[in-house]
Amino acid sequence: MPFYFPNRTGKPIRIPPPLLLAILYLALILIGAVVLVLPVAVTHPISFSDALFTATSAVTVTGLAVVDTGSSFTLFGQAMILILIQLGGLGLMTFAALVLSALGLPIGLRHHNFLREDLNQTSLHQLVGLVKTILAVVLFCELIGGILLLTVFVPDFGWARGTWFAVFHSVSAFNNAGFALMPDSLSRWATNPVINLTIPALLLIGGIGFSVISDLWIHRGWRHLSLHSKLMLTGSAILIVWSVTMFAILEWHNPDTLGAFANPIDKLQISWFQGLTTRTAGFNTVDIGSIHDTTALMFILLMVIGAGSTSTAGGIKVTTFIVLVLATIAFFKRHNQLHAFGRSIGLEEVMKVLALTMISMFVVMSGIFLITMSHDGDFLDLVFEVTSAFGTVGLSRGTTGELDTLGRIVIELIMFIGRVGPLTLGFFLARRVPPRISYPSSQVYLG
Amino acid sequence: MPFYFPNRTGKPIRIPPPLLLAILYLALILIGAVVLVLPVAVTHPISFSDALFTATSAVTVTGLAVVDTGSSFTLFGQAMILILIQLGGLGLMTFAALVLSALGLPIGLRHHNFLREDLNQTSLHQLVGLVKTILAVVLFCELIGGILLLTVFVPDFGWARGTWFAVFHSVSAFNNAGFALMPDSLSRWATNPVINLTIPALLLIGGIGFSVISDLWIHRGWRHLSLHSKLMLTGSAILIVWSVTMFAILEWHNPDTLGAFANPIDKLQISWFQGLTTRTAGFNTVDIGSIHDTTALMFILLMVIGAGSTSTAGGIKVTTFIVLVLATIAFFKRHNQLHAFGRSIGLEEVMKVLALTMISMFVVMSGIFLITMSHDGDFLDLVFEVTSAFGTVGLSRGTTGELDTLGRIVIELIMFIGRVGPLTLGFFLARRVPPRISYPSSQVYLG
Ligand SMILES: [K+]
Ligand SMILES: [K+]
Repeated sequence: MPFYFPNRTGKPIRIPPPLLLAILYLALILIGAVVLVLPVAVTHPISFSDALFTATSAVTVTGLAVVDTGSSFTLFGQAMILILIQLGGLGLMTFAALVLSALGLPIGLRHHNFLREDLNQTSLHQLVGLVKTILAVVLFCELIGGILLLTVFVPDFGWARGTWFAVFHSVSAFNNAGFALMPDSLSRWATNPVINLTIPALLLIGGIGFSVISDLWIHRGWRHLSLHSKLMLTGSAILIVWSVTMFAILEWHNPDTLGAFANPIDKLQISWFQGLTTRTAGFNTVDIGSIHDTTALMFILLMVIGAGSTSTAGGIKVTTFIVLVLATIAFFKRHNQLHAFGRSIGLEEVMKVLALTMISMFVVMSGIFLITMSHDGDFLDLVFEVTSAFGTVGLSRGTTGELDTLGRIVIELIMFIGRVGPLTLGFFLARRVPPRISYPSSQVYLG
Repeated sequence: MPFYFPNRTGKPIRIPPPLLLAILYLALILIGAVVLVLPVAVTHPISFSDALFTATSAVTVTGLAVVDTGSSFTLFGQAMILILIQLGGLGLMTFAALVLSALGLPIGLRHHNFLREDLNQTSLHQLVGLVKTILAVVLFCELIGGILLLTVFVPDFGWARGTWFAVFHSVSAFNNAGFALMPDSLSRWATNPVINLTIPALLLIGGIGFSVISDLWIHRGWRHLSLHSKLMLTGSAILIVWSVTMFAILEWHNPDTLGAFANPIDKLQISWFQGLTTRTAGFNTVDIGSIHDTTALMFILLMVIGAGSTSTAGGIKVTTFIVLVLATIAFFKRHNQLHAFGRSIGLEEVMKVLALTMISMFVVMSGIFLITMSHDGDFLDLVFEVTSAFGTVGLSRGTTGELDTLGRIVIELIMFIGRVGPLTLGFFLARRVPPRISYPSSQVYLG
């Protein structure tokens, strides 16, 4: 299902969609870098390397930063970053919805099967319709989020700066970008209830995936939801309860994080925020460099898992993680197939999950491997930074600022792979072909 | 297929084999610990905790140590450790062969199907026959190894001590135990060709698996080998070439390891030895604490992979790793099944591999998680130590000596799980039952 573009001779040029997506993202990053290095964008001169890193981080909605967004960039520069985030997040959701519809899953349009099987039959008109629908949902959520955030930022900064803060953080949160205008992210509002409700709400909606949102919109009840939506909602709920509880338990007495707050309600608010934002959004209200090693390890796991397919989130995705767990449970129950909510999940899916997980592990391991070759920092911090880039999360324990050129290139590549990779794989999944040759089966001992 | 033991009332008591195995290993460890703490076994008093750790490490053929084997234990103590190693390794191979024969794979006996389907029908006579065959192979290899090692140790230590060194290291090497009588393992003989040939040969034969050895013995050629043997031999060869080459490249100029040797032949000998021993045996001829972080990361991967099923080695096993890689390749080739050497590997196998890998990851992650809670050492060293325990490898970067009580218990548990766990899982695999209910199939988006 390649896209066709007419060339000068009139013959169409075939471009496979994943390649098109990669080219578009790359072009966006390069244009962004060129704009961000301009004197009009910055308060003090930055290197092209800094600008390239910032643009990559913005387009891939990661949020890792080598220069402070709030102080190094002018209003124009910040607006540029916000546009890159919005295009990155939107492009992602649109492309994911296209792939998803090709897989035959509902994407929330009335005639949602029209894209099925062959994207080539998709007219520009229909494509525009899909993008319009997604855009409407996105802008509506960002608008509501922005209005709620006004009540926090306007009293603190006045109308002009307060409005800009509200817009910036609403868009950044919905796209799970994690970019913030203060050097310590949202730590200043760690115990502010509006921040603790609005930001998590935005990133949850942005991170659960467009397919789940449209499924909920159409069916308005649990019973008729697709298996994908049920798994996403249950899995996310369990992960949230687990991460919030564990964060509270592990950090309760840490004087550099929760221990600094006397009120248990404050501690719980911060645990709630950090438990929710860690899987993909990348905001923080406590210093990530001060969390306990055990907590950092839990964060690494959460960042690898990520959030939902067809969302603005990264990672191997919640559904992939669930299938991994279900396969393990099925193994112990001695079942030959997986099932959940009265539906079975084919063994082909298990193979896809295994391949996806292996590729992810390979990317993360290769990244760590390459960076350790030239960088001699703390290993935990390094693993944290690489998984943060892979999950396009953006939380940092400080390693990103210290990286040499090779390290920066590796992190940029991993952010790019973490963003474009899963979509490319999703595209592969959508057009699997049966094998031509059948071999006699054989058994291998594995234990 | 439980074993039956008559009790006082004459009714048989059913004990599932994995439970029996766990009980036997536990009993062996406890008896070992009680003996090793006796004054006759030690040159200076050690705590029961030290003795328990040593016994666990010996029975699970790991090789991690909290006291120096050569100087802390008397000849009697060292002999006890050697007996624990031999019983641990032998018990392992026997049980694995039993499970394997229940799976219908060849185990090198003339009537190899006699154990199939139901171990309950196995007579004591047949069991003794199997153990005898394995014992003969083991003792033969250890004898040859010991004689070759005499040529190194007798000139260095005289006949009495030299002979004991030859016996100890031959048995330790064949069982992939990694226990050595010098505090710096075999570093003193880093460039000795006999050591560099004999020890790797012993640990390769002990680590490739009894099933592969008997398969080679019966068929004496590549063509008719089972898929399992072909995968094991090819996979091991690739892993050896890769690990030896990478070690040489990464450490060539490290002044604390290969850089200390001027002669390229010496450097290559050490790379050869270290590349071979790391996956499971746990001997070393350079200081493991001085290797580069990148090399340590490679070692962690090798230790998780381990060597062969039905061998004295630990880890997820080479075949498991190969299936992981094949599944990933099949995914990219858009195949619905895996194949190698003209045979297909069923998707049920892929599910088993996934479950096995997940459980392994879970054990390793939990171990790291628990130890970080009370131990504040270097994270890389900690991960190294936990994977070394899980793969029953025994290489150390020094963390084991610094562990508190919780840390020691965790490492002991992981060594035990790393040893008994895969066999228990293998037993599960051997008696998988088909599911009773069939559910309608459904698709989940994973990308
Ligand atoms: K992010
Ligand atoms: K070992």
